[in-house]
Amino acid sequence: MEFSSKLLQNAVNEMSQLPGIGKRTALRLVLHLLRQPSDQTKHLSHALFTLREDVKFCKSCHNISDNDLCEICSNPHRNDEIVCVVEDIRDVLAIEGTGSFRGLYHVLGGKISPMDGIGPHELNISTLVNKVKQGKIKELIFALSSTMEGDTTNFYIFRQIENSNVITTTIARGISVGDELEYADEITLGRSIVNRVPFESSLKS
Amino acid sequence: MEFSSKLLQNAVNEMSQLPGIGKRTALRLVLHLLRQPSDQTKHLSHALFTLREDVKFCKSCHNISDNDLCEICSNPHRNDEIVCVVEDIRDVLAIEGTGSFRGLYHVLGGKISPMDGIGPHELNISTLVNKVKQGKIKELIFALSSTMEGDTTNFYIFRQIENSNVITTTIARGISVGDELEYADEITLGRSIVNRVPFESSLKS
Repeated sequence: MEFSSKLLQNAVNEMSQLPGIGKRTALRLVLHLLRQPSDQTKHLSHALFTLREDVKFCKSCHNISDNDLCEICSNPHRNDEIVCVVEDIRDVLAIEGTGSFRGLYHVLGGKISPMDGIGPHELNISTLVNKVKQGKIKELIFALSSTMEGDTTNFYIFRQIENSNVITTTIARGISVGDELEYADEITLGRSIVNRVPFESSLKS
Repeated sequence: MEFSSKLLQNAVNEMSQLPGIGKRTALRLVLHLLRQPSDQTKHLSHALFTLREDVKFCKSCHNISDNDLCEICSNPHRNDEIVCVVEDIRDVLAIEGTGSFRGLYHVLGGKISPMDGIGPHELNISTLVNKVKQGKIKELIFALSSTMEGDTTNFYIFRQIENSNVITTTIARGISVGDELEYADEITLGRSIVNRVPFESSLKS
C-alpha cells in the first residue's frame, strides 16, 4: 500500500508488526485513532511506552509486577507451600480467574523447545529449583499445556527436584464440563477414565 | 480480568479501546510487545503519537498529508479536471491501488447519516461545492458506497452543483470480475443489464 503521508505510513508499519494485525487492519486502527480525540492516542502511546520502560518482573515468581514482589507473592493470605508452575502470565490470569487456587505461582516464561532454540537455561527453571531446595514448598502443581514441549519441561523440572521432599502433581486432564463424550478425542477420554475421581468429590465443585 | 500490575492493566485498557480489539487480544498484543526488544514499543508509541500530533489534512482534497497539499493534489502529472468524490482515506488508497485513475480526489470524511447525527455540515461538502463553482473541474465522479446514506450524500451534492457546468458520473455497479451470475444479488444483476456497455470497451481493460 502506498500512502500519501510518511507519518501515516510509519504508524501503519509499526502497528502491523503486532501479531495478527496486517496492513489493512493496522490502517483501520490508525484511521480510527485519527477520528478520535487526540487524548486517546496520547494515552495509548504513553501507556505502551511506560509499560515497556517501567515494567518489573516479580523476583520470586517472574509474574509481571509494579514492585519487586508481585501482588500475589506479597499477599500474606496466600498459601506459600503450594506453587503452581505455568508457562506464561496469561496462564496466571486464567487460573486466578477461576478463584480456585490460593497458592503461589512460578512463571517459566515458555516451554523447553529445541526446535525454537529454547533450552532450560532460557527459562526461569533454576530459580524454581532453588525455591524447592529451600524446603518451604510442599506441593508443586505442573500446569503446562500437555504438548510434547510441555511434557518435556515437566519432566526436566521433575528430574531436578526428584530428591527433594516435595509432592508433584499435574492439573487434571479430562472432558470439559458441558462437553459431549462422542466429540471428545480418544486420548483425553481415555485419560479421563483411567484417572476417574470418586463421585462425591465431583459434587463439591 | 484482574492484573497484578497497574501498568499492564492500563496498557491493556487503552489497547482494547481500538475497534475489534477486546481485552484478551489486547493482552496478547501487549505481552507480545514485552517479549520484543523495547525499541519496537518505543517506535510504535512514537509513531502513533507523532501521527496524531503532526498529521495534516490536504487543504484541497482533505486527504491525509504531511504538507498543506497532499502528494496527489500537488502532482503536476495528475488531471485536475476530474475529481473523484470518496467517503474516506481508505477509498483513496483502494482506487490508487487500481492504477486506473489519474485525476484528483475529494475526501468527504463520511456520508450524510441523520441516524448517526452526521449532517452535510459535518462533511467536507462546502469546499467541494466551492471548487466546482470555480469552474475548473469538468467531471465529478461519485464513488461513495451504494447505501441509503451514500445515495443521499450523492444527491445532496448533486443538487448543490446542478447549475454548474460539470458532468457528474458514478462508478459502475455490476457483477464482480470472476463472479458467477447465479450468486449475484438481483439489484446488482438488474443494474448490470440496464447499464450494459459495448463489448469492445470490455476488451480494453
